[in-house]
Amino acid sequence: MGSYMEILGSRAKEASRFAGKLATNEKNRVLLSVADELCQKTESILNENEKDLTAAKEHGMKASLIDRLRLSEQRILDMAEGLRQIAALDDPIGEVLSMKTRPNGLRIGKKRVPLGVVGIIYESRPNVTADAFGLCFKTGNAVILRGGSDAIYSNKAIVHAIKEGLRKEKLPQDLILYVEDTSREAVNEMMKLHGYIDVLIPRGGAGLISSVVQNSTVPVIETGTGNCHIYVDEYADLSMAVDIIENAKTQRMGVCNACESLVIHVSVAEQALPMIVSRLKKHGVEIRGDETACEYCEEIIPASEEDWGMEYLDAVISVKVVNSLNEAIRHINTYNTGHSESIITEHYRNAMQFQDEVDAAAVYVNASTRFTDGFEFGFGAEIGISTQKLHARGPMGLEALTTTKYIIFGDGQIR
Amino acid sequence: MGSYMEILGSRAKEASRFAGKLATNEKNRVLLSVADELCQKTESILNENEKDLTAAKEHGMKASLIDRLRLSEQRILDMAEGLRQIAALDDPIGEVLSMKTRPNGLRIGKKRVPLGVVGIIYESRPNVTADAFGLCFKTGNAVILRGGSDAIYSNKAIVHAIKEGLRKEKLPQDLILYVEDTSREAVNEMMKLHGYIDVLIPRGGAGLISSVVQNSTVPVIETGTGNCHIYVDEYADLSMAVDIIENAKTQRMGVCNACESLVIHVSVAEQALPMIVSRLKKHGVEIRGDETACEYCEEIIPASEEDWGMEYLDAVISVKVVNSLNEAIRHINTYNTGHSESIITEHYRNAMQFQDEVDAAAVYVNASTRFTDGFEFGFGAEIGISTQKLHARGPMGLEALTTTKYIIFGDGQIR
Repeated sequence: MGSYMEILGSRAKEASRFAGKLATNEKNRVLLSVADELCQKTESILNENEKDLTAAKEHGMKASLIDRLRLSEQRILDMAEGLRQIAALDDPIGEVLSMKTRPNGLRIGKKRVPLGVVGIIYESRPNVTADAFGLCFKTGNAVILRGGSDAIYSNKAIVHAIKEGLRKEKLPQDLILYVEDTSREAVNEMMKLHGYIDVLIPRGGAGLISSVVQNSTVPVIETGTGNCHIYVDEYADLSMAVDIIENAKTQRMGVCNACESLVIHVSVAEQALPMIVSRLKKHGVEIRGDETACEYCEEIIPASEEDWGMEYLDAVISVKVVNSLNEAIRHINTYNTGHSESIITEHYRNAMQFQDEVDAAAVYVNASTRFTDGFEFGFGAEIGISTQKLHARGPMGLEALTTTKYIIFGDGQIR
Repeated sequence: MGSYMEILGSRAKEASRFAGKLATNEKNRVLLSVADELCQKTESILNENEKDLTAAKEHGMKASLIDRLRLSEQRILDMAEGLRQIAALDDPIGEVLSMKTRPNGLRIGKKRVPLGVVGIIYESRPNVTADAFGLCFKTGNAVILRGGSDAIYSNKAIVHAIKEGLRKEKLPQDLILYVEDTSREAVNEMMKLHGYIDVLIPRGGAGLISSVVQNSTVPVIETGTGNCHIYVDEYADLSMAVDIIENAKTQRMGVCNACESLVIHVSVAEQALPMIVSRLKKHGVEIRGDETACEYCEEIIPASEEDWGMEYLDAVISVKVVNSLNEAIRHINTYNTGHSESIITEHYRNAMQFQDEVDAAAVYVNASTRFTDGFEFGFGAEIGISTQKLHARGPMGLEALTTTKYIIFGDGQIR
């Protein structure tokens, strides 16, 4: 029959055939029922979570990571609420995006259908387990989850509750499969399940994502790395620039849409830099600049070449002073990760040129990069933020978990 | 600076920035000019083609493959005409697919933009060289081509003519780059150019495609393998079934949308099989069937398990007799390659169930699978036929060579 992972793959594929046939009403009812089941199993989930927390403390895990790992009654209620919200979203499956009649009478339509089997490889947060199931189930997919070994007890308890909910609704429990083998070999094998898994989505740090991109033969959607820039144009409203930079850098430091790099036109650098630096210093942000920036403001410390490409996810920001918009665009296109970039300007042509020429998933004029988010964009859900160009780019809502199929109605046509 | 391939990658990336800025009028003018240049260079292209033909004969290449390799004045005119047709197509770049205003006043739009750098790895036919350039250029992309070593002189001559056309129009010649290093190492390195190449499209046989899928770290669009089925339902119009099967199997044998496998409901097998076999025999087609099929018709020879999954690309077809529509769907979903499948039926529910449950890029009712083609679908062009689910599925027109970017217009919004 094949290896452990192949068996999981073929079970998921079998279950996905079933999921694809479910009507929206049925899927919504099951999501509500699974949400209830999670709440009912709160005690056992918390008990299992305690095992992960004990192990984490023994291994000397950082307090911030332990906090991400920790579940509480409220966090489980939030997970359940997340599933109920997914139930309330429109179902993208079955929509016919176009239908036309060809000269020979063939009616050719393009219909949105499930991908089939979605694989998700993720790190510590156990709430991803319920969230990923909800999004995949709503879109008629089966899901294979591989969480971090730190959260293995918590994840298994959540998966158990979901399976119990599915069982009560008389649905195949294989709609969610969890890779219990936490070895590196198992995850490597998962990345080679071409033919079983239709798409693999890594959710976690840059190391995890790069390892999946390098090793997977299954199509991957790259998510999340963000070296986001804000460019202060020579025609910027400087007071707006300072507010936006403060927000984009400090509102939440550890996220992929936070600003990591500033680019400033030389003609406003002398005036703008002290304003920006004094605002950022209030939040304890360290500013690393090029030579010109350091000249204009003594609180800026010298940046090295590596700083231009860094995603700090921390209270640090780099500053580059440029002589032109073209130089700014070139700098951004050289060092960015294709996530979110913003120009602050009152100048029409500069705004348009920046939007046209900067190569990223989201290009802003006069707004904070922090808005790159499925909820802020109005999708009602988010699977992640794609920084690649194929299939989905930018915040991914339910549609990113679907594909299309051509449906053709004939009456005997031959070529 | 890096290896030969990295240098090619970075030159292509540089050129792609330029290509993305070109207006449609400019792109169309250049395509016409390149078409003229190809015609003017007919003699030198034919001379170089002669070198490939001589080498091919020395190596004992099959006559059918030599024919694919051979250029003529007419074939060069056809290539030029292909570029002129691409010039006449609508430019997908710049279309804003949606634009809405969020409650906070942010205007968020989704705009179609070029992918950047497209890599194409292909086998013998030299006309792909001009075709691939035309499609990528029209969509604002740079292209890196790696053709088969059999066609190296022909391909280089065509690339030279295209570059000459670009030079005359004062455009960067790096908009088309040809990998002259024909070693296996070079192609392996090309597949690892993540960060330079945005998508890799293999065009050729199953071996080539599988090798690219297995080895590439660049996102790949799988194309072309087609084990296409026709299912003759118990409620089929048998005369229509025979016509469609004849067309799908014999109109052109060596193509991916040709029918390779028949599935027949047992209640019509006795009547239908002799009709089908006698029609196919006229074209010299060998029919391999399961035990039941062989019982009904002595001209059918026994099939083995491997036959169910075979893409013959030749005058052979397999026949499986089933007891129900469900069994037919299960058989097809087990052995197909996700290309094109057709049901012949007059029964409404069976038609709908087949379309809903068969997992393939194109699912037909009462029509030949041979219609799965960008031109037949009305796209005016075809890059290939995707048999994967990510990004593009089925025949790919110009849109498959594009991605989207979110453009966001604010007036100082912060979170």
